[in-house]
Amino acid sequence: MGVVLLLAQTAAASRAERCVTPRLTAAVQEAQKRAAVEDRAYEWTERLVIECGPRLAGTAAEQHAAEWAMTEMGDAGLANVRAQPFAFMGWTRGEARVDVVAPFQQTLSAAALGGSVGTPSEGIEASVVRFPDVATLEQATTADVAGHIVFIDQRMSRARDRSNYVSARPVRSDAPVIAARKHAVAVVIRSLGTDTNRLPHVGMTRYAPDVTSIPAFALSIPDADLLALMQARAGSVTLRLYSSARQQPQSTSRNVMGDIMAPVHTREVVLLAAHVDSWDVGSGAVDDASGVGVMLAVAGIVRAHRDVLRRNVRFVLYGAEEFGGAGAQAYVDAHVATSKHVAAIEEDLGSGRLWRLQLPRRDDASGVADVLERTLTPLGIELSRDYAAFGGTDLEPLRALGVPVYDLDPDASSYFDVHHTANDTLTQVSAEGLRQHVSAFASFALLLAGVSDECLSELVSVATGSMH
Amino acid sequence: MGVVLLLAQTAAASRAERCVTPRLTAAVQEAQKRAAVEDRAYEWTERLVIECGPRLAGTAAEQHAAEWAMTEMGDAGLANVRAQPFAFMGWTRGEARVDVVAPFQQTLSAAALGGSVGTPSEGIEASVVRFPDVATLEQATTADVAGHIVFIDQRMSRARDRSNYVSARPVRSDAPVIAARKHAVAVVIRSLGTDTNRLPHVGMTRYAPDVTSIPAFALSIPDADLLALMQARAGSVTLRLYSSARQQPQSTSRNVMGDIMAPVHTREVVLLAAHVDSWDVGSGAVDDASGVGVMLAVAGIVRAHRDVLRRNVRFVLYGAEEFGGAGAQAYVDAHVATSKHVAAIEEDLGSGRLWRLQLPRRDDASGVADVLERTLTPLGIELSRDYAAFGGTDLEPLRALGVPVYDLDPDASSYFDVHHTANDTLTQVSAEGLRQHVSAFASFALLLAGVSDECLSELVSVATGSMH
Repeated sequence: MGVVLLLAQTAAASRAERCVTPRLTAAVQEAQKRAAVEDRAYEWTERLVIECGPRLAGTAAEQHAAEWAMTEMGDAGLANVRAQPFAFMGWTRGEARVDVVAPFQQTLSAAALGGSVGTPSEGIEASVVRFPDVATLEQATTADVAGHIVFIDQRMSRARDRSNYVSARPVRSDAPVIAARKHAVAVVIRSLGTDTNRLPHVGMTRYAPDVTSIPAFALSIPDADLLALMQARAGSVTLRLYSSARQQPQSTSRNVMGDIMAPVHTREVVLLAAHVDSWDVGSGAVDDASGVGVMLAVAGIVRAHRDVLRRNVRFVLYGAEEFGGAGAQAYVDAHVATSKHVAAIEEDLGSGRLWRLQLPRRDDASGVADVLERTLTPLGIELSRDYAAFGGTDLEPLRALGVPVYDLDPDASSYFDVHHTANDTLTQVSAEGLRQHVSAFASFALLLAGVSDECLSELVSVATGSMH
Repeated sequence: MGVVLLLAQTAAASRAERCVTPRLTAAVQEAQKRAAVEDRAYEWTERLVIECGPRLAGTAAEQHAAEWAMTEMGDAGLANVRAQPFAFMGWTRGEARVDVVAPFQQTLSAAALGGSVGTPSEGIEASVVRFPDVATLEQATTADVAGHIVFIDQRMSRARDRSNYVSARPVRSDAPVIAARKHAVAVVIRSLGTDTNRLPHVGMTRYAPDVTSIPAFALSIPDADLLALMQARAGSVTLRLYSSARQQPQSTSRNVMGDIMAPVHTREVVLLAAHVDSWDVGSGAVDDASGVGVMLAVAGIVRAHRDVLRRNVRFVLYGAEEFGGAGAQAYVDAHVATSKHVAAIEEDLGSGRLWRLQLPRRDDASGVADVLERTLTPLGIELSRDYAAFGGTDLEPLRALGVPVYDLDPDASSYFDVHHTANDTLTQVSAEGLRQHVSAFASFALLLAGVSDECLSELVSVATGSMH
């Protein structure tokens, strides 16, 4: 071993010593032992899926799930369990149908994109203009597009993390506005996914106030293959689109939350999150019932070690996450004045094996990173020093305020096979896999809420710059 | 090498020499070379799927596909291209819906089984009795079952051949009659399949004249998982079933056929088969558009070597195969008097790599088996000496008359992931994979239709016993 490396390791160990007490270290070890043998996360996941089913934001099913979550939070030992209702722009799917009508006839497997407007009741019939990606659509002229149905045939490839999804997402979120500016009558996209199943991937799209809102659909991946082949063979293909989707202004959803209060009074909060709502096409088992199950199990374990906490741990199960932002903003609006958020993390990328911890910003100097690395490495999780933590949709308003957000990244190689499809079922969730999640998130919660003030303030000041 | 083995090989080589002329051997080699470089089978597969879509027997789409096939048979160089219409008991799917209504509420992904009757328009609501397999249902008493919905939760596991499907098939074909005899009100089955997709596997069921016909549904595999979990958790689960499926007496379908006539007059026929119809839920790409594509490509290649034939080669693309038997019987009724069928083979197990040739009955003594082995081994196909050839649904009436049937078995390890589901799409078919199929089937056709009379009569007499 080189001298420099040895010195670095010694320095890291010494920084770590300043951060954790032997009692805290012992609590983390106890938590990991318990997480390794209990299946409560899976139990809760299974019960949420079985008892509540799919939980589209704004529906009675989502409300039922939120009430269920409050009861379970109480059982897990959380204090101050409460719901926070908020209004958002909801949506009903209705019926959707995409038919090839010329020069061939057959029905494609498709779904309306979340938030999209419907078609007239007689549908929309027009010929298709195919674009290999959004960039090519952006370069097209109005003459290329006007009066046509735009088909974005962009492929998304498999990756261990969310990066390919993030780069493909403009296909779903931006294409309708870009196409409408060029007077397209509708948009169909190749689903954002990595499978070959005849199940469309849904998810939110967006409109802009100054552009006509045009209907937008996702085709399943084999159906996008088929449409592309038809176009290549026939030159021109005519589709008939029908959708009775409708935006629902003034829908109501709710965040559900509960706390583990540190034995000493403090306004400092470590926030752990998942979301209660799901898309309607599947069971919402991996997105995000398993996140909810993990959080409830973590709550039970952290609760048992409340005595080592120097900060409160708050569990927030957001509503309407899939509708992007209203619940997250409502949480921040109501809580940043009364609580000082020192760290936040969300579980929302499936139940694959956790392999990486991402840090919020450069904090090599802090002992917390060293402690986290020492604690998570034995669980197979490497500390990334890319400082590229994402946080999660629900944590964006917190991150915007400078709160340090972290990612514990599951292996997402097969997550986008089922993401936002009917295939998001319990069959995709492994009880054994979730044990590691509980172990890691419980360790994270105990450490961030238990490290010495000195270590934490060092961490927070590095991570957020201006906050202190 | 042992003396005995050496002697056996020498004997086999000498038997083979008696069977094939150098011209026939050269023709087979030419055919294999051509098959290795052309993609006509895939082209035809793609065109059938794109131009005709799913082809439920008795529908206009099936008729359109049959007309398409006649045109393509002409292009492939076949003579006597003709359609043979026949009547059969058809079926329309209508709409189907399976809802869990108590103690939880959610919709399961399900489809009516082929040929099944509908429910009353208000549906059927009853509690579920689960059976792990058909054998357990058979042992149940009427008191166990009467008034309930029977749920057969039998699992089918993966295999390289069709064996696990054959052993699981009674779940779909026999359960409604067994359950109705015990006064069940309906049947739901775990789909016969090896995947974890939320897409039910359809396929025919059967009723008996002396028992009430009760509605029957397949649940997708994850939905069967879910229902089983619900039952385990709640003890009793109530379902509401709805189906507007209807039997259609006097539907019409048609077999399409064409010949390559040997240069000498003969009544002897080597029959190669696939089927035009498909289930409606998918594209019918692997079941059996790829079979049709392979047969058309084989026809084109065999046609080019017509001069080496001693027997006619007939290509039959059956109608209504999925409805089991009417087309096959119609073919036999019309043709056994005028043609002497010396061998038959069907391509209907997907486009996986061919790995095995199965022989009709014990024929070690014939030179044909040796010639086939020598010809197919370089393609990666082993000669099975289990003598367990199945032939295919369409060949059963021929087999019953003593016609020797063969199987060229593709690797079916993943076939039952998509079989009879919406996932039966072009995306599952590989152009490269089909080249080997064309090579093997063309070799088979040339050899069986080209070997010496002496060899063939030896083969046929061994294979069929009483025919000669």
